[in-house]
Amino acid sequence: MFKAVINAETLRDAIDSVSSLVDEVKFSISENGLELKAVDPANVAMVSLKIGSDAFEYFKADQGEIGVDLVRLSDVLSMADRGENVQLELDEESHKLKIGVGSLSYTLSLIDPTAIRKEPRIPDLDLPAHVTLPGGELRRAVKAAEKVSDHVILGVSDEGFYMEAKGDIDSLKLKIPSTELLGMKPGEARSLFSLDYLQDMSKSISKAGEVTLEMGIDYPLRVTFKLGQSVDINYLLAPRIEQE
Amino acid sequence: MFKAVINAETLRDAIDSVSSLVDEVKFSISENGLELKAVDPANVAMVSLKIGSDAFEYFKADQGEIGVDLVRLSDVLSMADRGENVQLELDEESHKLKIGVGSLSYTLSLIDPTAIRKEPRIPDLDLPAHVTLPGGELRRAVKAAEKVSDHVILGVSDEGFYMEAKGDIDSLKLKIPSTELLGMKPGEARSLFSLDYLQDMSKSISKAGEVTLEMGIDYPLRVTFKLGQSVDINYLLAPRIEQE
Amino acid sequence: MFKAVINAETLRDAIDSVSSLVDEVKFSISENGLELKAVDPANVAMVSLKIGSDAFEYFKADQGEIGVDLVRLSDVLSMADRGENVQLELDEESHKLKIGVGSLSYTLSLIDPTAIRKEPRIPDLDLPAHVTLPGGELRRAVKAAEKVSDHVILGVSDEGFYMEAKGDIDSLKLKIPSTELLGMKPGEARSLFSLDYLQDMSKSISKAGEVTLEMGIDYPLRVTFKLGQSVDINYLLAPRIEQE
Repeated sequence: MFKAVINAETLRDAIDSVSSLVDEVKFSISENGLELKAVDPANVAMVSLKIGSDAFEYFKADQGEIGVDLVRLSDVLSMADRGENVQLELDEESHKLKIGVGSLSYTLSLIDPTAIRKEPRIPDLDLPAHVTLPGGELRRAVKAAEKVSDHVILGVSDEGFYMEAKGDIDSLKLKIPSTELLGMKPGEARSLFSLDYLQDMSKSISKAGEVTLEMGIDYPLRVTFKLGQSVDINYLLAPRIEQE
Repeated sequence: MFKAVINAETLRDAIDSVSSLVDEVKFSISENGLELKAVDPANVAMVSLKIGSDAFEYFKADQGEIGVDLVRLSDVLSMADRGENVQLELDEESHKLKIGVGSLSYTLSLIDPTAIRKEPRIPDLDLPAHVTLPGGELRRAVKAAEKVSDHVILGVSDEGFYMEAKGDIDSLKLKIPSTELLGMKPGEARSLFSLDYLQDMSKSISKAGEVTLEMGIDYPLRVTFKLGQSVDINYLLAPRIEQE
Repeated sequence: MFKAVINAETLRDAIDSVSSLVDEVKFSISENGLELKAVDPANVAMVSLKIGSDAFEYFKADQGEIGVDLVRLSDVLSMADRGENVQLELDEESHKLKIGVGSLSYTLSLIDPTAIRKEPRIPDLDLPAHVTLPGGELRRAVKAAEKVSDHVILGVSDEGFYMEAKGDIDSLKLKIPSTELLGMKPGEARSLFSLDYLQDMSKSISKAGEVTLEMGIDYPLRVTFKLGQSVDINYLLAPRIEQE
């Protein structure tokens, strides 16, 4: 059993943070809310999303699992006006999710959860350094780096957080001193990442007041942020090999 | 003789309600205003438009007929700023329409009315049921239905107005109870229509505070609405055959 | 030595007035500011731009010359938020321009000035007639003319300024009487110009409160306007041959 009411924009923002990496996902439903873990088709990025039951206006659910095409779900949610709620109700017999928006009632066919790629085991990395900054600032840096290159170095020095992008002709540096960061744990950290992935992630990240980046030397990047009070998102992005 | 002044946006909105279905039309001019009847190239939809002389700031005309390319006329009107008036004046000798917008003076070549497709005879159908709702609500329903299918069922039941769209995977229902409609005459009504046409029509309909839909069982849909006080628009849309 | 701070939008607007005609330019740097003269690849239009030192928040420079790819520079400036300043600093050894926007630091490779097309000698024409009008009004006229033709006649009569565009089917006239112009010197003037060039120019011109057009009979058009107090732009556009 699953029946819930939620602000359409809250749900859509949560879903968009995942759908930029993977289309079909398996939601775990429990009395605590909705959860999912997924990995992108190229195995470069992992995402975990938790929509706590507090994020809902109404939430009632037994333990369960549903397979959802996020692109279609996001498309349905776009029918809602700004500020409007959506009603969600699982029809267990027909394996369909009923989505009500105002006087519209949409029936979304679910995907057999066994047909969806297995959930990744998210590795429990101990990353030596981390920085916290406004989500909008990270997005701006990513957009600036894209003008120069396809890849970007993220790192932490004693002074603060830095980003470097080198193109064939031009280059770009970003330095945010520790005094201007919202939080920082200094440590050895410098890794190269694909801007394609960072750009997809940064659309959602830019909606967060603050985002924490955990890093090491040629280690994956862990990105942690919240949308509102009760939506928690984690990304883990594999590094690329830096060529001298 | 034809000489008139009208708000550019009023005239453009009126014209756009027709140009989504047909490009070249024959306007009948009389002291009461402008009128046209036209049918789309596929003979699926008819439109009749009346721009009453009251819709004009100034209007002086003898009986007459002019052939107009609506796409070019709409393009010229787009040169006007918001709230600006346009001057229209027929040059009978050269068969041109002079259109003044501010200090710009545009000369639009007219089309020989005999070269334009004959006006349709709009059938005088007695449709058993009708509902009245805000134009914006109809547009929203049409846009939602397009996410699911190419066709949509419109119907009237004892409870109110309904719409159903069935796609290969998902489906959508809309129900507006009679208490939430602006007006209703219950009756036997359920027909299938092409969403392509409804979408074209709904752009203009969405500008109307209210729109009336008249329907029957597998009968054409008649759509009636006003833009402002003095522009009257009627659509008649042929049904499609519903396949079980 | 060159070191300066300027509002990003001011610099971008100045650069866009040139980059619509030519990509790579040679800036002359002096204590008075930046200057350039350039001609478009087809030798139809010339542009001269002066950014006075007063346009800068901070300006310190020795005499010098730098070659710049305006498309890349404009792209970098687009990273700045509305109202934000950019820091410019020339690294003479590495032949690079360092551009700072907030915590971002961009390194733009310069072009060898000798590899850039020689500066044009801008002819000192004595044009018999001129009119002054709001920049936005010229842009509107140009956009209207494009709906009709690829070319446009600009002229001055005793009554004021006029524009004529003749298409295969329709035609357009604009007449602004001298009483509605911001300034006028009557004289013999009527020439045909390419709308492609006028359209490129009119984007920048529309940002100017007033623009002065100097004209003759089948003579080039000289366009003079300011952006803000300290940015001066001049265009010279060759006429086309009018075919009867």
